[in-house]
Amino acid sequence: MENNITIRDTLLTLVQGKKFSTIKDILVTMNSVDIASLFEEMPEDILPKLFRLLPKELAAETFVEMESDSQELLVKGFSDRELKDVINELYVDDAVDIIEEMPANVVNRILKQANSEMRKDINELLKYPEDSVGSVMTTEFVNLKSNVTVEAALEHIHKTALDKETVNTCYVTQADRVLIGCISLRTLIIANPTDIIRDIMETNVMSVSTDEDKETVALLFDKYNHIAMPVVDNEKRLVGIVTVDDAIDVIQEEASEDIEKMAAILPSEKSYLKTGVFETFKARIPWLLFLMISATFTGAIISKFELQLTTYAALIVFIPMLMGTGGNSGSQASVTVIRALSLGDIEFNDIWRVIWKELRVSAICGLALSVINFAKLYLIDYLMLNNFDAMVAISEMLVVCVTLFLVVVVAKFIGCTLPIIAKRLGFDPAVMASPLVTTILDTFSLLIYFTIAALILNI
Amino acid sequence: MENNITIRDTLLTLVQGKKFSTIKDILVTMNSVDIASLFEEMPEDILPKLFRLLPKELAAETFVEMESDSQELLVKGFSDRELKDVINELYVDDAVDIIEEMPANVVNRILKQANSEMRKDINELLKYPEDSVGSVMTTEFVNLKSNVTVEAALEHIHKTALDKETVNTCYVTQADRVLIGCISLRTLIIANPTDIIRDIMETNVMSVSTDEDKETVALLFDKYNHIAMPVVDNEKRLVGIVTVDDAIDVIQEEASEDIEKMAAILPSEKSYLKTGVFETFKARIPWLLFLMISATFTGAIISKFELQLTTYAALIVFIPMLMGTGGNSGSQASVTVIRALSLGDIEFNDIWRVIWKELRVSAICGLALSVINFAKLYLIDYLMLNNFDAMVAISEMLVVCVTLFLVVVVAKFIGCTLPIIAKRLGFDPAVMASPLVTTILDTFSLLIYFTIAALILNI
Repeated sequence: MENNITIRDTLLTLVQGKKFSTIKDILVTMNSVDIASLFEEMPEDILPKLFRLLPKELAAETFVEMESDSQELLVKGFSDRELKDVINELYVDDAVDIIEEMPANVVNRILKQANSEMRKDINELLKYPEDSVGSVMTTEFVNLKSNVTVEAALEHIHKTALDKETVNTCYVTQADRVLIGCISLRTLIIANPTDIIRDIMETNVMSVSTDEDKETVALLFDKYNHIAMPVVDNEKRLVGIVTVDDAIDVIQEEASEDIEKMAAILPSEKSYLKTGVFETFKARIPWLLFLMISATFTGAIISKFELQLTTYAALIVFIPMLMGTGGNSGSQASVTVIRALSLGDIEFNDIWRVIWKELRVSAICGLALSVINFAKLYLIDYLMLNNFDAMVAISEMLVVCVTLFLVVVVAKFIGCTLPIIAKRLGFDPAVMASPLVTTILDTFSLLIYFTIAALILNI
Repeated sequence: MENNITIRDTLLTLVQGKKFSTIKDILVTMNSVDIASLFEEMPEDILPKLFRLLPKELAAETFVEMESDSQELLVKGFSDRELKDVINELYVDDAVDIIEEMPANVVNRILKQANSEMRKDINELLKYPEDSVGSVMTTEFVNLKSNVTVEAALEHIHKTALDKETVNTCYVTQADRVLIGCISLRTLIIANPTDIIRDIMETNVMSVSTDEDKETVALLFDKYNHIAMPVVDNEKRLVGIVTVDDAIDVIQEEASEDIEKMAAILPSEKSYLKTGVFETFKARIPWLLFLMISATFTGAIISKFELQLTTYAALIVFIPMLMGTGGNSGSQASVTVIRALSLGDIEFNDIWRVIWKELRVSAICGLALSVINFAKLYLIDYLMLNNFDAMVAISEMLVVCVTLFLVVVVAKFIGCTLPIIAKRLGFDPAVMASPLVTTILDTFSLLIYFTIAALILNI
C-alpha cells in the first residue's frame, strides 16, 4: 500500500511522542478498511493502545477488517468490558467469520462476552458447513408483515434499521415465517403511505436454501444483479440473507482458487505476502512431486525408443516443440472449459457440443501450425541451413508435421473433455488444468510421435 | 440451462398452437434474466412476436439481458413506436452498453427514437474510453442539496426515485456540482425528519475519476464493501455513479480475461458456446504459433549437444521430467504473483520481498524434489532395475538431481519477477503466465542441464 507509508511513519512518530489525541484526530477521518491495513503495519505492542483510541462503532468496523492474527492478539489484550463492546457491535456474520479462525479458548471468551441474542445467532450460524450459504448469511434483516401499510412499514424500519445489515430490500413473511415476498426500500419510498404491503410487494422472489453451495449463490448475484438474497430452511421459512459484499468476496475467492488449482497449487485463503514460506511450500510441493513422478513415464517412453533416436538423432530436436505445442493446445482448451463450467455457461449435457467445437477448432489450428512448420523446416532448415540429412529429410519433416497436427487435435480433445468428466464425477474441474493435462499430453505426444515415425520411416 | 429445456418446449408448442395469451401469462411470472435466456433459444422468426407479449417495463429489462445479436435483430424488427418505448425505459448505462455493440445505422435509429435527455446522456457516456470508469457509470443518481431537511429529501426521493438506477445511496453536491458528501437511504429513514442533510451526511466520501481504469474501481468495491461509488470529473464535479452490479460484471470479466491470458488465449467477451469456431481459432492461434516457434530454440540447444547425448543416451530420458518440473515450478510462482497483482495485494515496491520469499520457497521445494528423485533413481532404477551403466551411474544421478534443484530455483525466480516487471513496464502481467514462462524456462532448464552434465561428466 504505497500511500500508507507516509501515514504509517507519521503515526509511528506520533506514538513515540505519545501524541495520542492527535493520532485519534487522524484516525477518525479515515475509514475502517484503511485503518485496519495501517494497523497491520504497526508493531504488535502498540496495536492495542492504538485500537483503544477508536470510537466504539469505528473500533468494531476496524476489528472486522483486520487479519485474524491481529484479531486474536487484540482479543487477548482486551478487558472483558472492551471485548463486550466490540463483539456486540459486530454484525453476526462478521462475528462468525472471526470466530471460525480463532483457537477454542479465545472463542469461549468471545461467546461469554456476547449478549444472549448475539450468542444464540452466532451458535446458529456456526452450525452450517464451511462452503454453504448458511456460513456466509446474516440473520440481521428487515422482516415485514404483509397486512401493514407502507407508513407502518417505514416506521418499523425507522426503529429497527440501525441493527440490520441492509435495509435496501425488506422481506415479507407469513405468521409461520414462510417467505412470501420482498419489497425494496425504493418501492416503499415511492409508494403511497396508505398502500398495503401485500399489494405492492414482489411475490416472484428468488430464494436459496441454507445448504446450497455458496459459489452457486454468488453466481446468482452476478446473473440477476441482486444486492441481497433471502435464505430459507427446508420448510421455506426465512432464516437469513446474503448481501452482495459477501457475494463479491466469494466470487473473488473462487476465482483465486480456480487460478491456483489451474497452476497446480493447493488453494489458500491468505494473501500472498501474508502466507509464510513453509505454508507456500506445502501448497506447492504435492503437485510438483506428483507431476515430477508422472513425468518419468515420458522418460520411460523415450528410453524405449533410445535406439531409434540415436539412429535418427534429428528427431530428438523436435521433442520439446511437439510436447510444448501439445501442452499449450491442451491447456487452452481445458482452461476455457473450466472457466465456462465455473461461470455456469456450460454443463455436462453440453459435452458433445464442446467436443464438436473443439474438434473443428483443433483441426484448423493443427493444420495452420503444421503448414507453417513445414514451410519453416523446408525453407530455413533444409534449403538455407541444410540441417537435415538429405536422404530422409522430407520424410522426417513429414513425421514432424503429421505428428504436430495429430498432437493438437488430441490435446484439444483431451483438454476439453477431462474437466467436464471430472465435474460429472464430483471432482473439481479446475484440477484438470494445464499442469496435469500437460503431463498426460506429454505421454500422448511422444507415443504419437514415435508411432508416426515408425510408420513413415519404417523403424 | 437444464431447467429451461422443458419451458422452452412448452413455449414452442404454445407458439405453434398460437396460444399467445397463455404464453404471456407464463412470461409475466418470470424474471427478465430467465426470459432473455429462454428467448435466446427460440427460432429467430418468432422472437419479435414473443417479445411484443411483454409489458413495457419487463420488455425493456429483458431487452437489456439479451445477447447483442438478438438485440440487433429485435431493433431491426421494431416499429419506431416500439423502439421508442424500449429505449426510453432503459437505464442510460445499459443503453450505452447495447449501442456499443451495434452497427452504425442501428445506432442512428436508436438515437433518433431516444428522447432528448436520454440522447444527451448516451452521447455523454459514449465519449469515455472502453476500459474507463466513465464507460460503466450511469448518470441516473439521486442528488441532494446540503441545506434541506430529511423530510424534504425523502419527499424529493419519493418523486424522482423511479428513474434512478439506485436510491440506496444519495449524493450531496454544492451549487457548482462539486461532491461534498453522501448519505444512505437507511440513514435518512433512521434520522429525524427535521434534521438537516449537512449535519448527518457522510463527508469522508470516496470518489473515483471518470478516466480511472474500471478494474481498479471494481477492486475498491471488493475492498470497501460499497454498493455504489460516485464518479467525478477533473473539477471534482459529480457526473455519475457506478453500481455494484456493474462492478461484479467487471470483476468476473477481468478474472476471465486473466485466466484466458494465463492459458495463452487472446481474451474474448463472449461466452464459450456463443463464440464461433473461427473466432476461437483466431483467439488461440497467435500464441500457439509464437510458442511453437520459440520452442525451436530448445530444439536448437538439444541439437548442439546431439553428440554428447548419443554418448550419454540416459541423459535424454530425463529431459521431459526436468523441463516439466521447471515449467510447473515457474508457473506456480508466476500465477500466484499475477493474481496478487490483480487483487492489489502486491505492487512493484514489493519485488524484493517477493523474490526473497520465492528464493526460500524454491530452495525447500528444489531440495525436497532432488532428494526424493535421487532416492527413486538409486533405489528403483539403479539397484532394482539396473537401468544405469554402472560406471557413470552415480554421476549421472548427481547431474539430474543438481540440475533439478537449480531448475526449480531459477524457475521460481523468473516466474515471480517477470509479471512484476511486465506490470512496471506497462504490459499486462497475466501474459507472463504459464505458457510463455514455460517456454522461456525450457531453454534455461536445458542450458543448466547440459552445463551441469559437462561439469560433472567432463564432456
